[in-house]
Amino acid sequence: MQVDTDRLRADIEANAEFGDVNAETGRGRTVLCGTDANRKAREYFVGRLEDAGLAVEIDAIGNISGTWSPDSADETAAPVAFGSHLDSVPEGGIFDGPLGVYAALESVRAMQDAELEPDRPIVVVSFTEEEGQRFADGLLGSSVSVGQRTVEEALALEDDEGVTLEEALDDISFRGEGLLDAGDWDAWYELHIEQDTQLERAEIPVGVVTTITGITHCEATILGEANHAGATPMDERTDALAAAAEFVLDVERAANSVVDESSDSAVGTVGSLSVSPNATNVVPGRVEMGVDVRDVEYRSMQTIVGAARESLTRLETERGVDTTFERPFDLEPTPMADRLREAAHAAGEAAGIETMDMHSGAAHDTMHVADVTDAALLFAPSHDGISHNPREWTDWDDCAAATRVLAGAVADAAGGEDAE
Amino acid sequence: MQVDTDRLRADIEANAEFGDVNAETGRGRTVLCGTDANRKAREYFVGRLEDAGLAVEIDAIGNISGTWSPDSADETAAPVAFGSHLDSVPEGGIFDGPLGVYAALESVRAMQDAELEPDRPIVVVSFTEEEGQRFADGLLGSSVSVGQRTVEEALALEDDEGVTLEEALDDISFRGEGLLDAGDWDAWYELHIEQDTQLERAEIPVGVVTTITGITHCEATILGEANHAGATPMDERTDALAAAAEFVLDVERAANSVVDESSDSAVGTVGSLSVSPNATNVVPGRVEMGVDVRDVEYRSMQTIVGAARESLTRLETERGVDTTFERPFDLEPTPMADRLREAAHAAGEAAGIETMDMHSGAAHDTMHVADVTDAALLFAPSHDGISHNPREWTDWDDCAAATRVLAGAVADAAGGEDAE
Repeated sequence: MQVDTDRLRADIEANAEFGDVNAETGRGRTVLCGTDANRKAREYFVGRLEDAGLAVEIDAIGNISGTWSPDSADETAAPVAFGSHLDSVPEGGIFDGPLGVYAALESVRAMQDAELEPDRPIVVVSFTEEEGQRFADGLLGSSVSVGQRTVEEALALEDDEGVTLEEALDDISFRGEGLLDAGDWDAWYELHIEQDTQLERAEIPVGVVTTITGITHCEATILGEANHAGATPMDERTDALAAAAEFVLDVERAANSVVDESSDSAVGTVGSLSVSPNATNVVPGRVEMGVDVRDVEYRSMQTIVGAARESLTRLETERGVDTTFERPFDLEPTPMADRLREAAHAAGEAAGIETMDMHSGAAHDTMHVADVTDAALLFAPSHDGISHNPREWTDWDDCAAATRVLAGAVADAAGGEDAE
Repeated sequence: MQVDTDRLRADIEANAEFGDVNAETGRGRTVLCGTDANRKAREYFVGRLEDAGLAVEIDAIGNISGTWSPDSADETAAPVAFGSHLDSVPEGGIFDGPLGVYAALESVRAMQDAELEPDRPIVVVSFTEEEGQRFADGLLGSSVSVGQRTVEEALALEDDEGVTLEEALDDISFRGEGLLDAGDWDAWYELHIEQDTQLERAEIPVGVVTTITGITHCEATILGEANHAGATPMDERTDALAAAAEFVLDVERAANSVVDESSDSAVGTVGSLSVSPNATNVVPGRVEMGVDVRDVEYRSMQTIVGAARESLTRLETERGVDTTFERPFDLEPTPMADRLREAAHAAGEAAGIETMDMHSGAAHDTMHVADVTDAALLFAPSHDGISHNPREWTDWDDCAAATRVLAGAVADAAGGEDAE
């Protein structure tokens, strides 16, 4: 089975035209869900699916699928699906999402060229609004596809201007019918760029993810008493920032302690901190903080979040502040399916392409799909780990190598045969 | 000599209308230098000075003075001056500044009613831009009045939009000529609200300040490395916020230690802290902080500032951050004139009003005036010590009592006689 590097590259470069930002360095695009750039990217993709003879469907929230159901396949068998997303962050790169979508399509074309005869239908997928830049917080299309959110809830989501997802999809004529149900699939693969430097440093073109780290976002507020910095003696203060400083260090200490004791992939970050009134001559009265906690072990995440809560409780007692703590976002770590990981390594070995195990610190649609069926995530190297930026780059040869591994793995999952 | 509480109250309440913020609780105003609210406050004040028969002058930077030069006074004698300021912080209270201005005017009216015959002219003053909310860092009008800054330097100061003080004063037609020269005065008094709770707790209506604390403002910057919170392991981080948290606690610890060991009036505050990029899922790359250090002993201030510098040096070594430290503002502690303090206590005793010695943790125009002539500062109680807030409050009876002491002290300094 041969992957056609030029054909893959031509699709990714054609897709890069939509929302092109004319970046000074690199090549960037802005493709927010439901915009004109997004319509063009979707229309091009549908055309390319049809060119390859796939049966295209658009579901009620704009998820796009193209099904290849050759004579060899049992139409009633659960299909094998793979893909990614076409939307981007503002001024994002050209590989984050499109590589996975077009690598899936190229894989089907490679299987067709090799006259493979899979037992199961094969589905190429592009999920709606993965980046969460206009509607919801991210992973929208896959969240509906796995039943975590209803179609109605999704369509009612509003952007900052009050436009609903329903209106936005109608604007670009991409609100279809029914639902692309990930629960119907026998297996799911996604190829994505790594967005870090492990593959680059190891000089290995394909990563096979063992676990996608869990992510929790917490919001902590500390209320003290704003007062004149000159007229308020040290022993009469309730300084919200001094209390927050202890909290920041407690979170860091808790994460370091988990790293030392059990899981070296654990991280805890107080990434945002806002002080009110934030004037040099006023004792801070209020501090709001955003905390990010991740690990491949949910227990580690709970340990760090627990330490953050305890810190606030202690500060209420010791410093007399009031505190609040919320955890608006919580995704448990997601292990990838062993059989699909093994198939990916085997496909690499068969094609003479080196692969390595790694975990993913970033979230992907595959996190959701793994809730309802066997799922796997492959990574291609990112130059300097840069992404969400026009300088995001993956060499075309690496794109092709990862696509070759993807095609072999999916062919295996679909019960076909690798022609090599 | 009788102070008319209602007349004083009517002036302060009339002044409170200008820039009224319609606060839910209390009564607030926003009167920034050179704004329409400031123009109205100035025009009303000029009118009230003229109503009392005072000769009004506006100097080149908008300082307003009204001189009472009765027949008894030697026009060539150095006058006695008193007053405060009319500008406010955003959403400030109605007493901070205006009490001192209108208490001075009410004192003159009380002396006139009592037919006092002072030997020296008496000058009622409102300094320009005391709060430093739009131009410079505070105490602007008095800094020029004592020669610390030239008129030209002051007029060239720009606000955040690039508007100069000269333009702002022209806008409200309050750029006059010449300079209100504090060096010409024989003595200066200012009455201000305490902004703390010492008087309230002692149930004494008038404080006589012994020393105005020195003030230093420092600016500290910590540079780490911004990175993806998920993809950057704990041991590969240079987290600027975690380093800043140590700095905040080091400054607090140093101030507490000085309080324990030598001077219980010492304070050290990290009042402002800004994080960049300030996103929950990004390791902070840069933190900027504003530090406020004060005491009646300059040595204590130096100890706390030294500890702040040492903290940064330690963080460079221990955490690999880069740091900068500047000290753009430094005023040494200012003792008040003994003869004027004694006169204030004597005026209180004569009027049957209790007074007490205290220091001032806040900066006032009097700090500057004390550099060129004998100066004194009186305080009236602040409910719960609240100020720079619509909930700032001083009972009208306390306003009147403090004004009575002010009037007696100024009458004494001016060589008149207390009619009681």
